[in-house]
Amino acid sequence: MQPDFSTLDATLGDHDGYLLDADGTDSTQRYLSGFDAPDPFVTCYTPEGTHLLVSGLEYGRANADARADTVDRLSAYDYRDRVQELGRETGRGAVVADFLAEHGVESVLVPGRFPLGTADGLRGSGVRVEVDESDAVAEIRAVKTDEEIEHVRRTQRANERAMAAAETLIDSASVVDGVLHHEGDSLTSEAVRREIELTLLESGCALDETIVACGADAADPHDRGSGPLRAGEPIVVDIFPRDKETRYHADMTRTFVRGEPSETVREWFELTDEARRAALDAVEPGVTGAAVHDAVCDVYEDAGLPTLRADPDAETGFIHSTGHGVGLDVHELPRIAPDGGELEPGNVVTIEPGLYDPDVGGVRIEDLVVVTEDGYENLTEYPVEL
Amino acid sequence: MQPDFSTLDATLGDHDGYLLDADGTDSTQRYLSGFDAPDPFVTCYTPEGTHLLVSGLEYGRANADARADTVDRLSAYDYRDRVQELGRETGRGAVVADFLAEHGVESVLVPGRFPLGTADGLRGSGVRVEVDESDAVAEIRAVKTDEEIEHVRRTQRANERAMAAAETLIDSASVVDGVLHHEGDSLTSEAVRREIELTLLESGCALDETIVACGADAADPHDRGSGPLRAGEPIVVDIFPRDKETRYHADMTRTFVRGEPSETVREWFELTDEARRAALDAVEPGVTGAAVHDAVCDVYEDAGLPTLRADPDAETGFIHSTGHGVGLDVHELPRIAPDGGELEPGNVVTIEPGLYDPDVGGVRIEDLVVVTEDGYENLTEYPVEL
Repeated sequence: MQPDFSTLDATLGDHDGYLLDADGTDSTQRYLSGFDAPDPFVTCYTPEGTHLLVSGLEYGRANADARADTVDRLSAYDYRDRVQELGRETGRGAVVADFLAEHGVESVLVPGRFPLGTADGLRGSGVRVEVDESDAVAEIRAVKTDEEIEHVRRTQRANERAMAAAETLIDSASVVDGVLHHEGDSLTSEAVRREIELTLLESGCALDETIVACGADAADPHDRGSGPLRAGEPIVVDIFPRDKETRYHADMTRTFVRGEPSETVREWFELTDEARRAALDAVEPGVTGAAVHDAVCDVYEDAGLPTLRADPDAETGFIHSTGHGVGLDVHELPRIAPDGGELEPGNVVTIEPGLYDPDVGGVRIEDLVVVTEDGYENLTEYPVEL
Repeated sequence: MQPDFSTLDATLGDHDGYLLDADGTDSTQRYLSGFDAPDPFVTCYTPEGTHLLVSGLEYGRANADARADTVDRLSAYDYRDRVQELGRETGRGAVVADFLAEHGVESVLVPGRFPLGTADGLRGSGVRVEVDESDAVAEIRAVKTDEEIEHVRRTQRANERAMAAAETLIDSASVVDGVLHHEGDSLTSEAVRREIELTLLESGCALDETIVACGADAADPHDRGSGPLRAGEPIVVDIFPRDKETRYHADMTRTFVRGEPSETVREWFELTDEARRAALDAVEPGVTGAAVHDAVCDVYEDAGLPTLRADPDAETGFIHSTGHGVGLDVHELPRIAPDGGELEPGNVVTIEPGLYDPDVGGVRIEDLVVVTEDGYENLTEYPVEL
């Protein structure tokens, strides 16, 4: 199943194609080419077909793996000679100009982060190059195909195994003087994070960061957390891995307390779970991300807690947006936030309400769901319990 | 100890500064700013000082961590309003133009992969933007400070622990019908790779790829290897991890044989070790990378084996270059290859001769060394044994 590229076709206007010059870690490149390579390669999307230009080293693999109608080699355009003659950057631009001419492309739209060296070389060769201010591909990427949804689901399954490993570690710890202990040492954020990383590695996933934050650390939604974990305080565990093979992400947060939570933490947890359910109830095609975000704010404000909606300067309470799209990037469209537009079937979004106060700590619950024709399907199978 | 930026100052010519707009995974950005952030930020190097422009979220950390004389916030230049008014890309360019004006910069040199959106916005605001065809920062990065050498050394220590784990696994395997077995299953490239990854993770290192290649797989220097490992055939293990904290890489290869190697493999191993020692003997300041590469070719050709130097179409024998620089990137300057220039104290380079033939397999030995005032210091403490 191919994505629906009609938005991109409309955005092209009088341009012949959409051009990329990036390596496979660039999500737009990965998406349009269906190909992954460690060094930059060129993809030109046109409504008639997609054309790739790669090094000789990648030629065989690109022919086998890429979502391309044609694959050309740099050497077919005298790459080495042109670079020697014109310089590395201008030479590359001149070669890409020849490649475009071969495919009848005289004018291209490019993303904002397209490399200037190639662009200047193209312009010097008479190709029209304009930056796409609308980021049309990001809009298309926001609507997932069934295959992409399966990729995200698989990553979330791995994520659940990692969350279970973290929970088991916290659950099986002994408590000495109010601090969690494991195998004789105090149990730290770092140790739980390592357990999560090892579990994800076993599932073929990678991740750069994980949040395991306790007490005051957890009151800052961006703090990764450090040091010994304490009993009776909420521990926020937020994991957002990437499958190494498909490159699709997942995202989930749970909050644990070892021992007895305070009355406030217990109330916050129940309120946050209520906010989560209110947001999920609101999710369906045609409803805006803004309306889903409002459903969360309503729950918190009805309970008398501060939100950024009621007070833009709030530093405690619900101080972030409700969610974001997840796919090849861990943060992508659509936004479940005050400026979030209408949801569509195929959107994969997080719902992650939370409450924060340095005197209490933090509580956050995050599920990952896909918008369906008549509501949503929750891709998260992990129980919600304090 | 600061790097020597005089090459960059000379390259600037009549430009006022060298400008970057990239995130912390970009090695040039990381090097010039000394700062790591997940989203793109702006660094302007001038001979008088280095200026950063970051989001409010990164402001505190940038002030504490970055190698910068000043740190500005996007909001100080009305970022939100400008983007709303002019569009995401042009707006960013206009804001960066104001930031440059604030620091008296009217004309900048940028790397070839500088984002076109920002460049067009800058040019529209009257700033002169030119691409640096020489890649001056790459030349500077090739000469490491003592601190950088210590970073690489630390990563190589972790690498040695990973290599030892791989060797132990291969060494302790049982042999059933010519195939290595571990805990009842056949021992595969994938299993050894996982053991390497787990060991590196414990040492705070990450890596995207590792080569564990046996038999015909090992005859292709770029094959990562797959499937069961066999006794009597050479197993090439090439590991190039990155320390997650410093982002500096290391690189090492060893070749193992479980059971009895063939006479040819034994000869190839001794010859490759001789080539390694010949290359190391040649390493000193003023000697070119080309001369070091020639020392390797001499050993192989004297033994009657094919090299790319003797036959540019050779498909067996010594079919790659001798080495490359290692630092924030796993492949950087200088080159130990036919086009390699003069070595300087502080260069960190691999020496990795090898021989390949699908009928025999592959043999490669790779050390990582730093060029000193009067020769080299080997950063690799792992024994060289078949």
